[in-house]
Amino acid sequence: METRMLDAFARKYKQLLEAELRTLVDQLEAPSVIKDAMHYSLEAGGKRIRPLLVFATLDAFGVDPQKGLLAAAAIEMVHTYSLIHDDLPSMDNDDLRRGKPTNHKVFGEAVAILAGDALLTYSFEVMGKIPEEDPSTTKKLVIELAKAAGTEGMVGGQVADMEGEHKALTLEELEYIHIHKTGKLLGFSVLAGAIIAKATPSQIESLSAFAHHLGLAFQIQDDILDVIGNQDLIGKPVGSDTTNHKSTYPGLLSLEGAKEALKTQINLAKENLQKVGLNTDLLMELTDLVAARDH
Amino acid sequence: METRMLDAFARKYKQLLEAELRTLVDQLEAPSVIKDAMHYSLEAGGKRIRPLLVFATLDAFGVDPQKGLLAAAAIEMVHTYSLIHDDLPSMDNDDLRRGKPTNHKVFGEAVAILAGDALLTYSFEVMGKIPEEDPSTTKKLVIELAKAAGTEGMVGGQVADMEGEHKALTLEELEYIHIHKTGKLLGFSVLAGAIIAKATPSQIESLSAFAHHLGLAFQIQDDILDVIGNQDLIGKPVGSDTTNHKSTYPGLLSLEGAKEALKTQINLAKENLQKVGLNTDLLMELTDLVAARDH
Repeated sequence: METRMLDAFARKYKQLLEAELRTLVDQLEAPSVIKDAMHYSLEAGGKRIRPLLVFATLDAFGVDPQKGLLAAAAIEMVHTYSLIHDDLPSMDNDDLRRGKPTNHKVFGEAVAILAGDALLTYSFEVMGKIPEEDPSTTKKLVIELAKAAGTEGMVGGQVADMEGEHKALTLEELEYIHIHKTGKLLGFSVLAGAIIAKATPSQIESLSAFAHHLGLAFQIQDDILDVIGNQDLIGKPVGSDTTNHKSTYPGLLSLEGAKEALKTQINLAKENLQKVGLNTDLLMELTDLVAARDH
Repeated sequence: METRMLDAFARKYKQLLEAELRTLVDQLEAPSVIKDAMHYSLEAGGKRIRPLLVFATLDAFGVDPQKGLLAAAAIEMVHTYSLIHDDLPSMDNDDLRRGKPTNHKVFGEAVAILAGDALLTYSFEVMGKIPEEDPSTTKKLVIELAKAAGTEGMVGGQVADMEGEHKALTLEELEYIHIHKTGKLLGFSVLAGAIIAKATPSQIESLSAFAHHLGLAFQIQDDILDVIGNQDLIGKPVGSDTTNHKSTYPGLLSLEGAKEALKTQINLAKENLQKVGLNTDLLMELTDLVAARDH
């Protein structure tokens, strides 16, 4: 697989994104402990797939990816807040995230809750500040971010996930969880790029379908890695889904069936991407990366 | 004190607000438990002072207060989320709020955290949807709401409050906490009305000063009620600040000094209100109500 183009692109924009996140938090006038807690989780690394989707979508439209910097930062803040709250003792009770102590392990539970609240809140300020010539674009970005993150998106998926614990879920229930818990924000990352690039309605439709299948592929690969992955790379014990009695794609479809489902979703993602009628090389590479990632 | 005009106004718009909050949550497509948890805390009552400030400010400008309905609902959602998270075991660990079991006592800690997250997120969607002729107005409302709620506002105040527990605070530190923890969102309630009413910069300046002093008055009266209030009316044990070793205005200034400080803030609030040059009768009455409230 040839990913050298994506490699250089990802390196460049990851760096810009991380510098922007640092600056955005640094410039807040607030007690230092909350800024430290926000920095800590924002800088804990990660693949920055959502920001890369924003940048690569803009690139497909021939728009300078930097135009998506604030939107990408806002989305990464929302993603980071969700990780902090998911890791809390009353939720998944995780002590480690990407091999490092989770936020509440370092700062205590109260500050961790507030750091999540602060990142979520700040994401809307950052999104609201996008210097669009047309403020109705900003308005649309704010509304769609809230939809992707809220009860009809990520929060709804997390609730369904909690309710489904220790239950045998159907494939349909499992997909509801993933489409909402991870799919909606991944999808919004592509949508944000498209909105900023002033995509046509039919382009937005194809890109939304692309993002939907990419999101499912992402989650299926996540479940597969929990069975066959390398613990050092994925940063949590292999087999933890089984230990926690979580419903997974391999559990429902067998490992071979899950690999088949992954291939199907990747193909559907690519088909929809081709319909957009733009130079989507980077998004194609990102899609391959999701299918082949080892952590 | 003559409050019949405010009484009728408050009754009418409280009813409209509460119906709007119910409808806004009802129309979400999400797992029922999260909607139940959101409804539970939104419908727990309360004085709805922030929404009333939005409505009364619009009234002062001769604008139909109903134009502020979505903004008022968004602000009440943010206030409600902050109460749910503040009550959590790792924060204030309160079992009762307004005489009823707190959200986490009814729905469990995980759902309570998510209900707070959901209300905060939804508030930005609701604010973003305000049908302004000029979308830059909506943009401004979103940004200012985020500032009032985030690390430079309410979250920052909550962090400072936690850090100040069991410490003897100076008056300056105590004011920092209150200006941020409660003052910023009260202030934004007035600002939101002014923004929607297209106030001039000098009107906004006077209204901001009004809201600043009103917020301090509100908090001083809160502290006074903790010393001399009626437990049944305020819904928590009298003297709980002393029991919890919280720094308060009566503690720093004596009860008489705190009453004096309250009078000063009320007078400053009213002076600034007079400068606005509008029919601010309702806002004047609201200010008197804050000074005289018994819960």
